[in-house]
Amino acid sequence: MKKLLILNGPNLNLMGEREPGVYGNESLDDINRQIEQKGKELGFECHFFQSNWEGAVIDQIHEARKEYAGIILNAGALTHYSYAVRDAIAAIHIPVVEVHCSNVHAREEFRHTSVISPVCAGSIVGFGKNSYLLALNAFEMLL
Amino acid sequence: MKKLLILNGPNLNLMGEREPGVYGNESLDDINRQIEQKGKELGFECHFFQSNWEGAVIDQIHEARKEYAGIILNAGALTHYSYAVRDAIAAIHIPVVEVHCSNVHAREEFRHTSVISPVCAGSIVGFGKNSYLLALNAFEMLL
Amino acid sequence: MKKLLILNGPNLNLMGEREPGVYGNESLDDINRQIEQKGKELGFECHFFQSNWEGAVIDQIHEARKEYAGIILNAGALTHYSYAVRDAIAAIHIPVVEVHCSNVHAREEFRHTSVISPVCAGSIVGFGKNSYLLALNAFEMLL
Amino acid sequence: MKKLLILNGPNLNLMGEREPGVYGNESLDDINRQIEQKGKELGFECHFFQSNWEGAVIDQIHEARKEYAGIILNAGALTHYSYAVRDAIAAIHIPVVEVHCSNVHAREEFRHTSVISPVCAGSIVGFGKNSYLLALNAFEMLL
Amino acid sequence: MKKLLILNGPNLNLMGEREPGVYGNESLDDINRQIEQKGKELGFECHFFQSNWEGAVIDQIHEARKEYAGIILNAGALTHYSYAVRDAIAAIHIPVVEVHCSNVHAREEFRHTSVISPVCAGSIVGFGKNSYLLALNAFEMLL
Amino acid sequence: MKKLLILNGPNLNLMGEREPGVYGNESLDDINRQIEQKGKELGFECHFFQSNWEGAVIDQIHEARKEYAGIILNAGALTHYSYAVRDAIAAIHIPVVEVHCSNVHAREEFRHTSVISPVCAGSIVGFGKNSYLLALNAFEMLL
Amino acid sequence: MKKLLILNGPNLNLMGEREPGVYGNESLDDINRQIEQKGKELGFECHFFQSNWEGAVIDQIHEARKEYAGIILNAGALTHYSYAVRDAIAAIHIPVVEVHCSNVHAREEFRHTSVISPVCAGSIVGFGKNSYLLALNAFEMLL
Amino acid sequence: MKKLLILNGPNLNLMGEREPGVYGNESLDDINRQIEQKGKELGFECHFFQSNWEGAVIDQIHEARKEYAGIILNAGALTHYSYAVRDAIAAIHIPVVEVHCSNVHAREEFRHTSVISPVCAGSIVGFGKNSYLLALNAFEMLL
Amino acid sequence: MKKLLILNGPNLNLMGEREPGVYGNESLDDINRQIEQKGKELGFECHFFQSNWEGAVIDQIHEARKEYAGIILNAGALTHYSYAVRDAIAAIHIPVVEVHCSNVHAREEFRHTSVISPVCAGSIVGFGKNSYLLALNAFEMLL
Amino acid sequence: MKKLLILNGPNLNLMGEREPGVYGNESLDDINRQIEQKGKELGFECHFFQSNWEGAVIDQIHEARKEYAGIILNAGALTHYSYAVRDAIAAIHIPVVEVHCSNVHAREEFRHTSVISPVCAGSIVGFGKNSYLLALNAFEMLL
Amino acid sequence: MKKLLILNGPNLNLMGEREPGVYGNESLDDINRQIEQKGKELGFECHFFQSNWEGAVIDQIHEARKEYAGIILNAGALTHYSYAVRDAIAAIHIPVVEVHCSNVHAREEFRHTSVISPVCAGSIVGFGKNSYLLALNAFEMLL
Amino acid sequence: MKKLLILNGPNLNLMGEREPGVYGNESLDDINRQIEQKGKELGFECHFFQSNWEGAVIDQIHEARKEYAGIILNAGALTHYSYAVRDAIAAIHIPVVEVHCSNVHAREEFRHTSVISPVCAGSIVGFGKNSYLLALNAFEMLL
Repeated sequence: MKKLLILNGPNLNLMGEREPGVYGNESLDDINRQIEQKGKELGFECHFFQSNWEGAVIDQIHEARKEYAGIILNAGALTHYSYAVRDAIAAIHIPVVEVHCSNVHAREEFRHTSVISPVCAGSIVGFGKNSYLLALNAFEMLL
Repeated sequence: MKKLLILNGPNLNLMGEREPGVYGNESLDDINRQIEQKGKELGFECHFFQSNWEGAVIDQIHEARKEYAGIILNAGALTHYSYAVRDAIAAIHIPVVEVHCSNVHAREEFRHTSVISPVCAGSIVGFGKNSYLLALNAFEMLL
Repeated sequence: MKKLLILNGPNLNLMGEREPGVYGNESLDDINRQIEQKGKELGFECHFFQSNWEGAVIDQIHEARKEYAGIILNAGALTHYSYAVRDAIAAIHIPVVEVHCSNVHAREEFRHTSVISPVCAGSIVGFGKNSYLLALNAFEMLL
Repeated sequence: MKKLLILNGPNLNLMGEREPGVYGNESLDDINRQIEQKGKELGFECHFFQSNWEGAVIDQIHEARKEYAGIILNAGALTHYSYAVRDAIAAIHIPVVEVHCSNVHAREEFRHTSVISPVCAGSIVGFGKNSYLLALNAFEMLL
Repeated sequence: MKKLLILNGPNLNLMGEREPGVYGNESLDDINRQIEQKGKELGFECHFFQSNWEGAVIDQIHEARKEYAGIILNAGALTHYSYAVRDAIAAIHIPVVEVHCSNVHAREEFRHTSVISPVCAGSIVGFGKNSYLLALNAFEMLL
Repeated sequence: MKKLLILNGPNLNLMGEREPGVYGNESLDDINRQIEQKGKELGFECHFFQSNWEGAVIDQIHEARKEYAGIILNAGALTHYSYAVRDAIAAIHIPVVEVHCSNVHAREEFRHTSVISPVCAGSIVGFGKNSYLLALNAFEMLL
Repeated sequence: MKKLLILNGPNLNLMGEREPGVYGNESLDDINRQIEQKGKELGFECHFFQSNWEGAVIDQIHEARKEYAGIILNAGALTHYSYAVRDAIAAIHIPVVEVHCSNVHAREEFRHTSVISPVCAGSIVGFGKNSYLLALNAFEMLL
Repeated sequence: MKKLLILNGPNLNLMGEREPGVYGNESLDDINRQIEQKGKELGFECHFFQSNWEGAVIDQIHEARKEYAGIILNAGALTHYSYAVRDAIAAIHIPVVEVHCSNVHAREEFRHTSVISPVCAGSIVGFGKNSYLLALNAFEMLL
Repeated sequence: MKKLLILNGPNLNLMGEREPGVYGNESLDDINRQIEQKGKELGFECHFFQSNWEGAVIDQIHEARKEYAGIILNAGALTHYSYAVRDAIAAIHIPVVEVHCSNVHAREEFRHTSVISPVCAGSIVGFGKNSYLLALNAFEMLL
Repeated sequence: MKKLLILNGPNLNLMGEREPGVYGNESLDDINRQIEQKGKELGFECHFFQSNWEGAVIDQIHEARKEYAGIILNAGALTHYSYAVRDAIAAIHIPVVEVHCSNVHAREEFRHTSVISPVCAGSIVGFGKNSYLLALNAFEMLL
Repeated sequence: MKKLLILNGPNLNLMGEREPGVYGNESLDDINRQIEQKGKELGFECHFFQSNWEGAVIDQIHEARKEYAGIILNAGALTHYSYAVRDAIAAIHIPVVEVHCSNVHAREEFRHTSVISPVCAGSIVGFGKNSYLLALNAFEMLL
Repeated sequence: MKKLLILNGPNLNLMGEREPGVYGNESLDDINRQIEQKGKELGFECHFFQSNWEGAVIDQIHEARKEYAGIILNAGALTHYSYAVRDAIAAIHIPVVEVHCSNVHAREEFRHTSVISPVCAGSIVGFGKNSYLLALNAFEMLL
């Protein structure tokens, strides 16, 4: 069974509590359980990691390159400025799929730019928690 | 059975022949057959339309509002400047999912901006023909 | 009796249905009847044309130069990027009055720029359907 | 009879003398008489104020909110930078119609931006003295 | 007892009436009484001046340099473009504290830039009428 | 005999009538006859197509790839924004030579940018109708 | 007694040692003691946290939402680029007051932009250590 | 004897007191006496006007057109944003010579742009009080 | 026989050796011989000058105005910044045709701007050495 | 008698012949004779140098620092990009007065920026040949 | 023996594995051994620290100020946005030499800006692992 | 013994005299002697060339390609705009090391951009005369 890392960046631990109009009511744990379940159905063993620390996100990306088949990454606000996360993605050889729950293009100007998109395999944006689930479908097709 | 419109804009008729390094070898017809097949499995009746004419794309979006449950739209280069297509999407009430085969963020600067993203339900970018298939999955979750 | 062409661009066929908060509840036909009526009172024979196709808008502008005294043009979103429509206006010798129903300056950034304004005789912006009617008054004064 | 304030900003007192190729030969007084006459016909009592002083323009806008039904404002060059005039318009509840005699979009770059348009009811641009008269028509429709 | 000048620029005379959602319901007089009261408690004799005229604001700044210990300045919209007010502040030797009632950084783009901040002693932004009261506290610490 | 497509975009049908100071007095038909004649001398069979419709221009580019040796393209104002035309040129394998009659670099700012130049074989700009004739010379050298 | 978190970001641990011309001679501990003292007088129990780690700053903001009445935040240089800190502030429901010791608007260009201001309750800038003390006054008024 | 108006804008009344490192120690009156003296020698009757009020500056420019041979204008900070002053200069037919005491190009960025330069006869910048005296020489040559 | 000056700017002496993938294998002398030959056939006496010195290029342009019928100019990298070369071209009355061997629009961003295009008679870009030969054809038509 | 260097950059040798509408009809020699004459009257021995070569201009500036009291510099188009000329001026200790004959601020955009102004003693712009003569007056006052 | 800190930021732990075409094949440990060796020869005791965590990099810079003679810093992608690292460098009094292995100026646009360069003693860019060794030579000269 | 060219651009001949606070007190000759000496020690025969003429700098770069092993280039202000020097470097096959004495990133904005960096082997910035000496070390490692 192939392993996937579901990696969430800053503030995603507050999912369900934070701006529910934008992000919905389910907690990250709720969502992770659904990802885990669907992952299993598609033949993936999903592991989960969330951190508000850029360094931890980078370390996980590095670690993942050794035993994971791919990463589903919601980098949170790091998406918009962390060239260090970008370089981490570019430095490894497993595919990374970028996801965002909200439609970042319909929000503040600064959210329209993703510094990590150019080095990701693809992006899935705007489907709420389903963005993660669609990324599982994407990995089913990619791998 | 719900109906979906798979709407392709300028130059996508040359898929398979045009820059195969970027877009792959399969023709639009090949891809459409796969979309149709997967659509059926998910309970969607898929209809297909491609045009190099912006006006035709807009007309189709207008038409679709009456009997379709949603639109999967690859607007081709219109993505980057056609505010008229954007207004068409904003004017109707069925969800539109934006897809791109190539990772537009890893190509020329002008491809980094989508004027239609802000009015779409979501975007799926960079998975080749699979971008269309993932959009079917997205509609399965949305509807 | 002098002839005027009332020329509407993309998405204006959905007037009344599209974003009624912005554009009001009356259909384009409703509005056209009022324009026709007021036109008659002011001594104008009004003809109407709407298209979602940039090429059709340009062709109409060309045609109009032969037998019309002027054009009332709501170019819709073409306003913001169609240098081809601009060149069409610049190429003919009858006056063109630009109208917009909504106050484009109070909406999204991209609507603040009109590429056709510099070659129009004048602009009337933000009075809803009355923008068309005021353009009739303008032609009464211009001609 | 409803009262309208015809408010002119800096340099409009030189109308008729200043750049006649752009602004025509009639003096502001000449034009005001025509506005007064047409206003009467449409049922408006027009009052006139011109000042080269931004503060006076703002004071007048404040005053007008108490007894006027609306303002026809040609802010002259204040149009392009006076956020104080903009705030004055936004602070009152009667409609303000922005007018310009010349087609500002066909002149110097700095004249393409109006900082007051977003808070006005509408704008009428490019019809010479007729811009004022059309604003009367606009108020006839608005009120 | 040290004297402070509480100096308000354009449109602040409409406080309480203007956009109460943004600026609250109390009139400038109401607020001034509270400032006066708190000033007294802190050992300041507060004098008040409001004008919609940039020139009057500058003259007051010049005047104040002779007998005031400092200025609390809400320059209104002049904040965003009046380099003349900026130069007036830079030309005198008493400290000026910039205040804004609303959080200018959360409003329109043009309000994000203050041309006077660089020459003020400090800025207090976003606390409603309390911004003035905090400025009194600031002067208590500064002087 | 090799076939060349002489493809003209929006508003070029008005050549001779439109801004003769910029574009000269000869009609497009007059010019086409001269192109045809010179083409014959150089061994080319020239075919002509003009349209004000972007979609038609794209369709023609696609069609041409099958039986033409090259395209001489004056895309008119589409030059400045039609990424769809650009993609059409990039999608085919026959050379396209871009021509403009007027010196676009000496006119309005927006004419200084050509979005199609980067994918054309070369550009010939500013020689009036001779730009087309020089493009024939260019094809003589290229093919 | 209400609890306030005094949260300091990168490099503020060097206060008193770092650029004393800009930041003064007192250490962060010296300042914290004064904040604590004044807080007590105003009825606040102040807690202190400083970190050079963005992740720690975010974690503290999250933690604080449960038992603190508000946060006084000097985000140091994170102010200018950390959209992750911004999102953390936006995600919680207690007020955050932004403070800076130096007048950031009078220093390098990059310090003129605060990405966190739009989501803070208010900002106090340029009063040296007194910025913190004024923030206490602000909370006295806010709460 | 020809009459010249020496017109000074905001803050120049503080000359000699304001930033003496930049502007020198002499008061505006001191300088005016020297201008008057040198004017006389060159055959000019010099009149002086200073105001911190933009409106007063504009009114003076208008007035001057009737009986003055020219204007020497130091518009102070209005130089950088007052399109109303610019329009006043453009509206009259006597030459205006722009002067600045300090080398504005060696100071803050915003001082590098003069919105009035394009409509002045010429500019003299950076010679301290001598800028005014050189303007007298300039008028001696111009008239 | 009319005389033409073939003027080459910096680094074109290394043609054939420098980046042959971009510029081809023939030396400037090789190319010049072909230009001379074709020039003769068309009735032109061609003279050749190359320099890496901007001053020499300008001097040659000045000289040429006296006895040449026109100039074929490949200004090399001076194209992108030498306003002095631009002024030299604008100062003379014989036509200058700008040529570039490579398609500058498909290379680095800085090569997309030509500061000399607006003052040249026309431009021929992207045909390798043939750009020079086409310029001869252009002069045949121009003169 | 103090020595002044009158230094002219590219294309000024064509003065009188080049765009006489902008630069007048007198040749540089004509003008130089007038400068020499007026210089003598004011007590200056004027030396003249003109070159189209940036390097020569720089060398002259270096040379001048040893025996000249100042430089009157019309750098021609080098004004707009030659940071090397700027550095030369900054490297010497004698004053340099920048002059331009035409009003550069009323011409093309690129002429609005002078990279040398910030390091010159002052600038005199727009008085035709008189700009040089006024610079003599300036030196009379400066030295 | 003087101590130097060799401080590496995000992703440099993957040196040798990450994009070897850009960064070479040697691991960071390999390189560190060579630095240590050369350091010894030049009289430096080198200590090494690498972290993907911005906070750790800042903490190390703070720590180093007490017992190190200088820092050789390759901040990785933090170079391009971490104003917090910049402030850390500015806050200490020992020299910091910035190094980059790759030629950042020949890579993506975002790598052309270093926010830390202005506060470093100097920069050495583009020599692969030798950049570190050259920094040792630099410290030999600096100290 | 390998030959290196030490190539200095505009104004570097004034080293020691020009802004000694920035560039130090030693003359270029003093520095060259030290370079020569250290070069010898490292096995390089150093040749020296300085010119204020861009063309001479380009010619030297061309010449050097035949018999030199590399170039140490301080292009002075040409660094910031001379695309012609850039093209010269790109046209040859020997490595060029860019050096600057001052920390250009800590000076004026225009010095932050080097148009030659992308085509140099590497850059050494900010170490005063030692920048040259470090470039020798760099060549020792490179060759």
